[in-house]
Amino acid sequence: MANTETPRSLTRPAHVGSVVIGGGAPIVVQSMTCTKTEDTEATAAQVRSLAEAGCDLVRVTLPHKGAVDSFAAICAQSPVPIVADIHFDYELAIAAARSGAAKLRINPGNIGSWDKVDAVIEAAGENGCAIRIGVNAGSLDKAVDAREDLTLPEKLVASSVEFVRHFEARGFGNIVLSAKAHDVPTTIETYRALSRELPQVPLHLGVTEAGTPQQGTIKNAVALGVLLSDGIGDTLRVSLTADPVEEVPVAWGILQSLGLRRRGPELVSCPTCGRTQVNLIPVAQEVERRLRMLDKPISVAVMGCVVNGPGEAKGADVGVACGKGCALLFRKGEVLRKVPEDAIIDELFKEIDAL
Amino acid sequence: MANTETPRSLTRPAHVGSVVIGGGAPIVVQSMTCTKTEDTEATAAQVRSLAEAGCDLVRVTLPHKGAVDSFAAICAQSPVPIVADIHFDYELAIAAARSGAAKLRINPGNIGSWDKVDAVIEAAGENGCAIRIGVNAGSLDKAVDAREDLTLPEKLVASSVEFVRHFEARGFGNIVLSAKAHDVPTTIETYRALSRELPQVPLHLGVTEAGTPQQGTIKNAVALGVLLSDGIGDTLRVSLTADPVEEVPVAWGILQSLGLRRRGPELVSCPTCGRTQVNLIPVAQEVERRLRMLDKPISVAVMGCVVNGPGEAKGADVGVACGKGCALLFRKGEVLRKVPEDAIIDELFKEIDAL
Repeated sequence: MANTETPRSLTRPAHVGSVVIGGGAPIVVQSMTCTKTEDTEATAAQVRSLAEAGCDLVRVTLPHKGAVDSFAAICAQSPVPIVADIHFDYELAIAAARSGAAKLRINPGNIGSWDKVDAVIEAAGENGCAIRIGVNAGSLDKAVDAREDLTLPEKLVASSVEFVRHFEARGFGNIVLSAKAHDVPTTIETYRALSRELPQVPLHLGVTEAGTPQQGTIKNAVALGVLLSDGIGDTLRVSLTADPVEEVPVAWGILQSLGLRRRGPELVSCPTCGRTQVNLIPVAQEVERRLRMLDKPISVAVMGCVVNGPGEAKGADVGVACGKGCALLFRKGEVLRKVPEDAIIDELFKEIDAL
Repeated sequence: MANTETPRSLTRPAHVGSVVIGGGAPIVVQSMTCTKTEDTEATAAQVRSLAEAGCDLVRVTLPHKGAVDSFAAICAQSPVPIVADIHFDYELAIAAARSGAAKLRINPGNIGSWDKVDAVIEAAGENGCAIRIGVNAGSLDKAVDAREDLTLPEKLVASSVEFVRHFEARGFGNIVLSAKAHDVPTTIETYRALSRELPQVPLHLGVTEAGTPQQGTIKNAVALGVLLSDGIGDTLRVSLTADPVEEVPVAWGILQSLGLRRRGPELVSCPTCGRTQVNLIPVAQEVERRLRMLDKPISVAVMGCVVNGPGEAKGADVGVACGKGCALLFRKGEVLRKVPEDAIIDELFKEIDAL
C-alpha cells in the first residue's frame, strides 16, 4: 500500500490511565455509552461491549450527584479507562476525578467561572486525570458567539485557544482538545486552524449530530478522512444516531482505509457488473461475515470477473477471481487452483486458515 | 455553512450527450448496471432506477457483439446519457459509438494496438462520443507494470499521461480520465499527481472493489472526500458490492457533506447519550424515512437533549430539541412551541410542509 500520508503532527502526549493520546501514539478510538449511568449494570455491560468492539476509551455521562456511586462502580469494573462527560456543574467534575475517571470532558464555557474551572483542574491534577476541553458549535461561550466579525470556525478556534492558554498558564498540560460542529466543511476548517494555532495540543476529532448510520458514516468518513490524511488528529469518536457499538467499526474502517491502524482482516470485493457470471453479492457477504470472526490482519479479495479480477486478487494475501461456474484461487499473487462455484467460500477459508 | 474548499481545479469540459463533465460544471454522479446487457428490459429498467436515484449518467457493459442490438435499444430508451463499458475489443467500442453511446469507457492498455485505439477515436469523433480513458491498477499495461523503478501510483500516472498525450496528439480532447485502485492511499496519491500532471483533463474519481456497503462507503467517502476537498474531481462513481442503486445516495451524501452539490433534505441528528430522555433513534429513523420523500433542500435537526440541542437545532431550517416527555420546536433559530413527545414527528412535518 502506498503511503501518501503527511507525517502526523507530533503533539504532546496526554495520559488517560494506561492509554496515551498524541505524542506519536496510535490513534485512539473511543465512543460513549447511552444507557442511564445510574443503571450500573447496563452501563458497565455497554462499556464492555464497546471495549470488545475496539474502543480504547469509553465516555460515560455523569449527569447529577445521584449517579456518582454508579459512576465509581462502572470505572472500577471497566476493562478500559473511563472518561467522565460533564456539563455545567464543576462539582460533578471533581466527584468524577475522585471516583476513578481517567479523563474529564468539560466545556469550560459552560462551567460558570474561571474559579470553578480551576477547581476542576486542581482535582484532575491531584487524581492523575487528563482533561478534554470540549468546545461545541451548539454551546459556544456567549461572548464569543455574539461576535459578528468571526466565522463559526473562527469562533470555535478563538474559544479553544482561550481555554488552552488558561490551562497551560496554570501548568496543566495533560489535555486533549475538541471543537465539534455538525457540518463537514466547518469541522475541516476548524481542526486545520487548531492544528496550526495549537500544534502542541492532541486533538480529538469528531462531527456532532452526524445523523443516522448511512449519512453519519459518510459525514464522519469525509471529515475525519480529510483531517487524518492531513496528519491531524490523535483520537476520534464517530457519532451516529444508533447503538454506540455501531460507531466503533466505522471508526476502525476510517483508520484502516488510510493505513493508519489495523484491526482484523480487510475484504476487497468488486462491484458486480454485466460481466459478472456468478452471484457475487452473497459470496462477498458470506466471506465478510466469516472474516469478522478472525483477528488476522490479512487482505482477502473476492472478484467477479476475469478483466480486473486476477490483477486485483494478486495484491491480496488470498483471493478468488470468479468465472463461469468456477473461480481461480490465488495466494499472494500465485494461482493455486481452479475451484468449482459451490466450493469457492470453503476453499478460500481453507487457504485463509492455512496462512 | 463555511466554505473550506480549495477552488475547484478548472478542467476542460467533456461533453457526454447533454451532460458536461469538468469546466466548472456541477460534479456528475454516475453508476453502472449489473444486469445482463442482452436483457434489454431488465437493463433499461435498472438504468431508469439509477436515473431516478440521482445518476446523471449510467454505464452499461457491452461484452460481445450479441449484445449490440440490446445496447442500442437501451440507449434509445434511457432518460440519461449512456456510457459503454468496453474491454479488449475495439470493434465493440466502434459499435457502441454507432449505437447511441454518449461516452465510451476504454482502457487503451488492453485494446491491443495504437491503430485500434485510433480507430476508436475516429468512431467517437464521428458520432459525437466522449471517451473515458480508464486506467486500472488491476489491468495495467504490461510494460509499465513491469517497471520496478515506479511505485503503483507512479505506474498509474505514467500510463495515464501516455494515453492522454496520444489522444491529444490526435486532436481528440473530449476525454475524461480515471486511474482506479482498490486502496485509499494509492487512490489519493494517484489523483493528486494526475491533477498536477494533467490539469486540463476532467477526472473521474472512484475506488475499485471497495467492498460491501459499510466498508465500501467508508473507503469511498474517505478517498473521494479527501480529493474533492482538495478541489480534484469532475465526476464520480461510488463502487459497492451491492445493488448499484445503493451506490447513488452514497455518492450524493459525499457531495452534500462537502457542500458541493445538494439533493433533497439534510437530517442533523445527535448520537444519543446518557442525557437523552426520549427514545431518539426511532424518531430520527422515522424522520429520515419521511424526508426521503421530499425534494426540498432543507436541513432538519432532531436533537436528544437540552445541552447542545437548542444550539444545534438553531442552525437548521426546522428542528426539535427533545426533553423529558416533550420537545421544543424550532424554525430558523426561533422557538415556536413546546410539543408533547407523541406529537414530535407530526408537528415537525407540519412545519416542514409549511416551509
